[in-house]
Amino acid sequence: MEKAIVGVIAKLRREHPVAAVGLSVAGFVAPDGKTVQFAPHLAWRQAPVAARISSRTELPVTLEHDANAAALAEYVYGAAAGASVVTLVALGTGIGCGLLLDGEIYRGAHGVAPELGHLRLVPDGRQCSCGKRGCWERYCSGTALAMTALELLSRYPGRSTVLAREAAGDPGAVTGRRVAAAARDGDEIGMMAMADLARWLGEGLALVADIYDPEIVVIAGGVSESATLFLDEAREHYARVVTGTGNRPLARIRTAQLGDDAAIVGGALLAREAVTGEPGAWRGRRLRNG
Amino acid sequence: MEKAIVGVIAKLRREHPVAAVGLSVAGFVAPDGKTVQFAPHLAWRQAPVAARISSRTELPVTLEHDANAAALAEYVYGAAAGASVVTLVALGTGIGCGLLLDGEIYRGAHGVAPELGHLRLVPDGRQCSCGKRGCWERYCSGTALAMTALELLSRYPGRSTVLAREAAGDPGAVTGRRVAAAARDGDEIGMMAMADLARWLGEGLALVADIYDPEIVVIAGGVSESATLFLDEAREHYARVVTGTGNRPLARIRTAQLGDDAAIVGGALLAREAVTGEPGAWRGRRLRNG
Repeated sequence: MEKAIVGVIAKLRREHPVAAVGLSVAGFVAPDGKTVQFAPHLAWRQAPVAARISSRTELPVTLEHDANAAALAEYVYGAAAGASVVTLVALGTGIGCGLLLDGEIYRGAHGVAPELGHLRLVPDGRQCSCGKRGCWERYCSGTALAMTALELLSRYPGRSTVLAREAAGDPGAVTGRRVAAAARDGDEIGMMAMADLARWLGEGLALVADIYDPEIVVIAGGVSESATLFLDEAREHYARVVTGTGNRPLARIRTAQLGDDAAIVGGALLAREAVTGEPGAWRGRRLRNG
Repeated sequence: MEKAIVGVIAKLRREHPVAAVGLSVAGFVAPDGKTVQFAPHLAWRQAPVAARISSRTELPVTLEHDANAAALAEYVYGAAAGASVVTLVALGTGIGCGLLLDGEIYRGAHGVAPELGHLRLVPDGRQCSCGKRGCWERYCSGTALAMTALELLSRYPGRSTVLAREAAGDPGAVTGRRVAAAARDGDEIGMMAMADLARWLGEGLALVADIYDPEIVVIAGGVSESATLFLDEAREHYARVVTGTGNRPLARIRTAQLGDDAAIVGGALLAREAVTGEPGAWRGRRLRNG
């Protein structure tokens, strides 16, 4: 992993002047911004990643949780410009979340929050790679879309033409992306899987509202590219199930604007700030209510 | 309700010099600190409570969510002194939560967060007065203790002497307080109900860690008076089920020190600050990490 990162840096240096490196990581980053404490899908455990990359490149390196970096980019350039409380929910292989309070990344006491993908929505539900069952990301992510579609195919074998054919050849071929494409083409199983995802997204958004009471929620990640297939339904379900519905302002639910680049842009913003010593222009734009 | 409040204020004024009123409310308080948006157990809906009490007493009135006020008091004088991120979980009739970031009350964008009592831990679980099912407070509160004990009594009719006798006379007599007292006396159903509460508290604390990553969680409310009966077990369950267990620092779980007075003390701190115009001494004690 570190070798690949060093390789990319070397390549970019041949093409551009590079003064600092900002890495956006899918894992818990320590409050020092230098250590990856735990990365569920990588081998890093209490790993001094910034120091290692820095010693191999002789460049200053800052680390940030990828969803935090993406949230920052959407706040500075994208869907969440200037909002007081922003929650970013990235739907990809799993769920990544970021929280910004007046443009400041919220890190919790130990650099772990917010980790909402593993909120358990369904006791004794689908097994998660984290060791628990029924985590939100098992029901609302690209991976979840594929799992739901396969379950629906076995329950309603006659219903789908496209997806059934693909699954018969190789169940692994039924990816979230394929399910979304099938839904867009009117495939019944694809549309049912999307409706299921919409419902679980709405359920999770209601939790997010109870937890952070955001002004804006940005839906990001690969699955958000198909937002037209699920976002209205998710928004309506959220409005229906949120605590105190009808007696509270609702968060605005928006689609990310920067796509896959968001985490990269956010990481770069933070790296530039670290190397120049100048606070980014987005800081202190607005004061939080006391 | 307002009449009762005005009566209490009049009584206190006969005994003490009173310059300002701080009300701690079990409900959503608008960011202006003047309006109760929604109070699940009271008739207030978008009610200008501060103005109404103020006009009847000719005193300045500040409102605060009761759990926020209690958290502030525990931060200034109690179990959470000076901690960077504090979550207070008050177990009473329901669950009230407060969040402090370096001593500043977190209000969210609309004054609603954090409302964790209605996180759904159990889909299709116990019916909640909020209209949903399976909310955390249906499994972890004084009310929940009583419900669990009654369920256990009907499942294991021979097991309890004290509680069974009381329930036979009047199921309503089996309150959370009675269950706790029975558990302290070694009553088997009482102890089973406590173990159930401990488990659900541990489950909820794991959510709290994923959500806010606090340095300290303060367990408050009436049920916390029986903390010796459940807190160690809850803490152990929490450590077992939290995401990334073994790879992250754990929050310290502590019992509240100020008891029922906490919300009153917190309300008074905020009222004094509002009337003197001087920031409370607790503010800015520590700076949050950027």
